[in-house]
Amino acid sequence: MSYKFARRMGTVHRSFIREILKVTANPEIISFAGGLPNPGLFPVAAMDMASREVFSEIGSSALQYSTTEGDAGLRSIISGRYVKRGLTVDPDSILVTTGSQQILDLCAKIFIDRGDKIVIERPGYLGAIQSFSMFEPEFVTVSLDDDGPDLEELEAAFKDGAKLFYAVPNFQNPSGVSYSLEKRKAVAALLDKYNVLFIEDDPYGELRFRGDDLPSVYSFCKKPGVLCGSFSKIAAPGFRIGWAVAEKEIYDKLVIAKQASDLHTSTVAQAIMRRYLETNEIDDHIDIIRESYGRQCEVMIEMIGEYFPKEVSITRPEGGMFLWATMPDGFASMDLFDVAIKDKVAFVPGRPFYVDGSGENTLRLNFSNSDEKKTEDGIKRLGRSIYSFLK
Amino acid sequence: MSYKFARRMGTVHRSFIREILKVTANPEIISFAGGLPNPGLFPVAAMDMASREVFSEIGSSALQYSTTEGDAGLRSIISGRYVKRGLTVDPDSILVTTGSQQILDLCAKIFIDRGDKIVIERPGYLGAIQSFSMFEPEFVTVSLDDDGPDLEELEAAFKDGAKLFYAVPNFQNPSGVSYSLEKRKAVAALLDKYNVLFIEDDPYGELRFRGDDLPSVYSFCKKPGVLCGSFSKIAAPGFRIGWAVAEKEIYDKLVIAKQASDLHTSTVAQAIMRRYLETNEIDDHIDIIRESYGRQCEVMIEMIGEYFPKEVSITRPEGGMFLWATMPDGFASMDLFDVAIKDKVAFVPGRPFYVDGSGENTLRLNFSNSDEKKTEDGIKRLGRSIYSFLK
Repeated sequence: MSYKFARRMGTVHRSFIREILKVTANPEIISFAGGLPNPGLFPVAAMDMASREVFSEIGSSALQYSTTEGDAGLRSIISGRYVKRGLTVDPDSILVTTGSQQILDLCAKIFIDRGDKIVIERPGYLGAIQSFSMFEPEFVTVSLDDDGPDLEELEAAFKDGAKLFYAVPNFQNPSGVSYSLEKRKAVAALLDKYNVLFIEDDPYGELRFRGDDLPSVYSFCKKPGVLCGSFSKIAAPGFRIGWAVAEKEIYDKLVIAKQASDLHTSTVAQAIMRRYLETNEIDDHIDIIRESYGRQCEVMIEMIGEYFPKEVSITRPEGGMFLWATMPDGFASMDLFDVAIKDKVAFVPGRPFYVDGSGENTLRLNFSNSDEKKTEDGIKRLGRSIYSFLK
Repeated sequence: MSYKFARRMGTVHRSFIREILKVTANPEIISFAGGLPNPGLFPVAAMDMASREVFSEIGSSALQYSTTEGDAGLRSIISGRYVKRGLTVDPDSILVTTGSQQILDLCAKIFIDRGDKIVIERPGYLGAIQSFSMFEPEFVTVSLDDDGPDLEELEAAFKDGAKLFYAVPNFQNPSGVSYSLEKRKAVAALLDKYNVLFIEDDPYGELRFRGDDLPSVYSFCKKPGVLCGSFSKIAAPGFRIGWAVAEKEIYDKLVIAKQASDLHTSTVAQAIMRRYLETNEIDDHIDIIRESYGRQCEVMIEMIGEYFPKEVSITRPEGGMFLWATMPDGFASMDLFDVAIKDKVAFVPGRPFYVDGSGENTLRLNFSNSDEKKTEDGIKRLGRSIYSFLK
């Protein structure tokens, strides 16, 4: 029997990053490849306590089926945290999802017909490229400058009939770039002008360690699209709890799509997360993460200054978990990967983040998951590998 | 801004059952509508203990991102449980999913192109109809007799170019029907003959309270398709843990689709479930569920004999959670619902389980979630409502 797979499966592949992570499972390898938060900062004891309380107080309801929309108390807390940061978000406009990755799948389901023009950043988030690819859109990419997307390219893409724009305006994965206030406003104006739907992914927004918080693009749009959030980077990813904010017309379709996808997000996971948030000050916890990632980022930048050739340029993130390095033209970071792995250091070559096959001379470095000693050793090794190519 | 939703959203709707569940949230209503396991039988204390051990022993790794395939230890245990029941299933062929509902979404993603002919049972499982509908197939339905599908109709559908057949051979939702051994073999032979892929959904297989266990259709197929399992009915649904069994070529595509859908199933939920299974004898627990549901089913059948008009025929399930009632021709169970709800008893009208809009005179009754007293009271009320129509 030969299987007759759907046509869409011809265009999607396993995540290159997840394949790399298998190679880097070797504990001798210093890996800047993953996108993992630092597990040393997970609030294990507090989650343990929250979990005990859930099982002893609401055990059987926490183990039962639940509503697709998500735990009402959890949605209230998420709403309250937005309000505290200056954005009015009604709990009824919040859909709890199985990680924020699921929002991308749900948005693709409800919005993308085959051949629709979807605008993404170049480089762009790989998980979004994967989710959207399943629904066979035509990707249109816009260059990402140090302060956000190239506005001329963006307007040209919108003029050309784009249906939606997906972006990560805060400390983007993979580049670490954040949109300036001016670009946020300009992007919102273009979205409104051309009636393009915006999917704003914001898993890292609260992980700012330099500069001032900026309002979401969502907050500047007259008719906002979908704003995505997640507990993965501010609490722990193992719960798989994210959320989408959307107005009623979109929300109702997202609920239908989620029912069909997995009925609802884990009741147990939601109950533990809710209890954790009710009994702990998560903002204090986030401060610890910020301080730690900020220091690790600083060390990485400093070590790059010391051990990388001057021809290598890098982004200088104000938050998040990643920075982005650009090698001289003609440099192949895929080849560098093979050399570096022999010297027991890993990163992610940039090409998979470009749907047009470019980005050959770029690479992504994760700084959230390595302490100062590891970062110094790893960057030293990586610098050595880069020099071996430039000789 | 008017939103431009994808074409597929024109053909799918909110689950009618989930909407009904909102109506029946009133505690005065005796509900046979839900598909809920009895929460009184959830192993709350054992899960609490398992959870404490997870947090104290492997806390930070249980909170971290994990592999798409799922927890290796959990997959081993699932494999071992199949082997014990006589089916060789390699752990590497098991993909842990976010409930077994997700398998239907993943299968739809990897197999269904718009317009593909998909065969389902009539009546059929609503969650599958929803998942598949998102990918715009053409549904072909085959009648379900007391011992399984009508084989002539099935062969005609296969001959006509069906791509896949989805079925629930054990104690089907909604009908409670199980396939006889002969029909299992005959269905497998037809699948092989016409090279049709089989998706065998088996959430209730271990909940048999009468008769002998029968091998899966999967076990009789030369080239088996996808076998779906779940902890929702034998442990607790709140974890959202199911699993798919598939051979490598299909498995690899399912993994790609799952990466794009939600990266992986909750690490915490998997860790707790694994620990629960390692430290408890789940088969003893399942015996308790079986005994309880068997008794509840018996009481319901007995009460139906007492309080329903003789014109109503019912299925006599050997396991699972549902039985199916057929009223005389011309009877509208949607109208009955409105009358019954005033008398504070609820059920699910049968029509949503028929993609062809038939089944108007049928209804589904859940017996797993009502004790004997409630069952007697509820069936008495429902009988009264039915009689009011037959007068």
